[in-house]
Amino acid sequence: MTDLLLRQDAGGIATLTMNAPERLNALSDAMLAALQAQIDALNDDRDTRVVVLKGAGKAFCAGHDLKEMQAGRQAEDGGRAYFADLFSRCGRVMTGLMRLPQPVIAAPHGIATAAGCQLVASCDLAVAAEGTRFGVNGVNIGLFCSTPMVALSRNVPRKQAFEMLTTGAFVDCAKAEAIGLINRAVPHQEQDGAVADLAETIASKLNAAVKIGKRAFYDQIEMDVDGAYAHTSEVMVENMMWRDTDEGINAFIQKRPPDWAR
Amino acid sequence: MTDLLLRQDAGGIATLTMNAPERLNALSDAMLAALQAQIDALNDDRDTRVVVLKGAGKAFCAGHDLKEMQAGRQAEDGGRAYFADLFSRCGRVMTGLMRLPQPVIAAPHGIATAAGCQLVASCDLAVAAEGTRFGVNGVNIGLFCSTPMVALSRNVPRKQAFEMLTTGAFVDCAKAEAIGLINRAVPHQEQDGAVADLAETIASKLNAAVKIGKRAFYDQIEMDVDGAYAHTSEVMVENMMWRDTDEGINAFIQKRPPDWAR
Amino acid sequence: MTDLLLRQDAGGIATLTMNAPERLNALSDAMLAALQAQIDALNDDRDTRVVVLKGAGKAFCAGHDLKEMQAGRQAEDGGRAYFADLFSRCGRVMTGLMRLPQPVIAAPHGIATAAGCQLVASCDLAVAAEGTRFGVNGVNIGLFCSTPMVALSRNVPRKQAFEMLTTGAFVDCAKAEAIGLINRAVPHQEQDGAVADLAETIASKLNAAVKIGKRAFYDQIEMDVDGAYAHTSEVMVENMMWRDTDEGINAFIQKRPPDWAR
Repeated sequence: MTDLLLRQDAGGIATLTMNAPERLNALSDAMLAALQAQIDALNDDRDTRVVVLKGAGKAFCAGHDLKEMQAGRQAEDGGRAYFADLFSRCGRVMTGLMRLPQPVIAAPHGIATAAGCQLVASCDLAVAAEGTRFGVNGVNIGLFCSTPMVALSRNVPRKQAFEMLTTGAFVDCAKAEAIGLINRAVPHQEQDGAVADLAETIASKLNAAVKIGKRAFYDQIEMDVDGAYAHTSEVMVENMMWRDTDEGINAFIQKRPPDWAR
Repeated sequence: MTDLLLRQDAGGIATLTMNAPERLNALSDAMLAALQAQIDALNDDRDTRVVVLKGAGKAFCAGHDLKEMQAGRQAEDGGRAYFADLFSRCGRVMTGLMRLPQPVIAAPHGIATAAGCQLVASCDLAVAAEGTRFGVNGVNIGLFCSTPMVALSRNVPRKQAFEMLTTGAFVDCAKAEAIGLINRAVPHQEQDGAVADLAETIASKLNAAVKIGKRAFYDQIEMDVDGAYAHTSEVMVENMMWRDTDEGINAFIQKRPPDWAR
Repeated sequence: MTDLLLRQDAGGIATLTMNAPERLNALSDAMLAALQAQIDALNDDRDTRVVVLKGAGKAFCAGHDLKEMQAGRQAEDGGRAYFADLFSRCGRVMTGLMRLPQPVIAAPHGIATAAGCQLVASCDLAVAAEGTRFGVNGVNIGLFCSTPMVALSRNVPRKQAFEMLTTGAFVDCAKAEAIGLINRAVPHQEQDGAVADLAETIASKLNAAVKIGKRAFYDQIEMDVDGAYAHTSEVMVENMMWRDTDEGINAFIQKRPPDWAR
């Protein structure tokens, strides 16, 4: 962990705060490395049940660090190898969030643009502060948001995604919720509370069930329907064989709280 | 047909009513078998044009029969083989609804939870009674709704589906309509009428066209766009070659009702 | 270009107007050929940055030319070969719009039915005149809209698409926007202005970036998520290597307008 990315742990919830407010939390090489380090750590972290991702300062995240990218052009190949590596590292962070065993809640405020909007789309859930503006506006500077659209177009209907990508226009929270980019928006001063409520609700569930379910969610969504049923049926059988699930069902039948080891 | 699943036929519309109100129409082994028997019968039933699925009593369906599942643990293997068979039978019912030649309209009321919510998602259409609550809340008892999410995540945007699955929270009808889980909700006392209107509208169409179209709908949706066009173009040609379609088009051109054998 | 399909060019925006108002701009053989000819021309047209598609007269487009289709039955094979060719040509136009390098904005008014609704769904963007009604109503005459549903079901959630297809019912603009079929609707007298604003916004971007992005949008959407990231990362690298993108980013950093050759 570096100063660039703060981590706070409480009650099984890890809150990661991107902390380069003067750069609008740009996804610099260092920020991507810090995020990847946390993703790697969380993959093996059996105590953490839910992850929250937020940004310090005025904005959630304004995307890539453009000055750093431009500096990359000084290399002999004009930056080609550096850019290939950069987008590979960035994609690894984005899919890494999706593949973490813990659900990840984005808590955007201010602006979430380009790869910052991709971060929101790449998290499993998003509770925004009212007033947040979302955009995939690389097209405005001649750099189409091609990698952000991978996440965006898997959250949002085609025409709405296409408009955001080709106009570079912002969408507000109401639109973002209507098209599926966020779960909901709340007043800024209530955001921490709303995110905590959601995180605590999920953290209160049987952890192993949430983990097996999150993994199965993204696995089955790319399968055809028969393959998806074959796969998730196996997941359900596995889930049924756990002692804690046996206890959870018995407790429900007996109308008492489950006695889970937690 | 058993008492567990009532069937009423009128005007080419078969209404199946799950009838275990004291169990909230749980999908017990017997209920699944009764549904499968009707699905098998409907597959060869050339007189039925539309199917309606509803539940007797306070709720549409509350999912699997938990007591029966727990009893399955008494087997030597702790229930593993029974559970595998159970989820396979359940998945066969769910995909069986999708593959019936007739459109299937879910008419949920009260609650539709876990595999009961999956039933709604697995029907082609859904007209709910206002007040119905929908949930995939297995996570509350330690059993993630992995098979229900196959149907849910093919109806509903990712973040909304993920929230329902990991929080176990209910969504109301307004939300269910906004996210695509149901077509609409109507006051409970108007539900039978609204469902009948929809069913009769579809039943009034050329039956063969509805059948070929329903099959093509789910076939093409899993193909890439070029494959989907190649396939549906063949379907259109086939459809054009029918005498009733020739008559339907002529009648339209001549501004008269078609003379369909029905 | 024929009288059937008017083309007007201004400011890098090509406006195609289907011009058979007495036939509600039916997609006759001649209209399909005229559209295909424009698509072929636009594919190599480096001056055109955005395409607008509209219809003259009371309606945007009412689908196939039914009289012409019926005439096709006179052939020895009852029309089979003609129909196969017709749907192949029609599908080529629909996917051709998607594969044009330029974004295509549909500007529907009046009605957009059957293959006319498919046209709207096949364009990248759609700004409708309030009052426009959308339907895939071939089922009413015994000809299920199987090819239109390829485009429809990739824009609209399943249950809403299925209802439109099996009932033949119209949806209005509010519903069309809510389900993702159009980006928005505006009063009819403001439609030309709103479409021009959108087209000019997109035309003002770096053209090469819009082109590479549009192609990548439809390529990646059919890939699994890892494949999509691998592909779009290559696209981003390519995009970064352009002189105009270098300039666009520098201009942004220096808070000045980019000096793009255009």
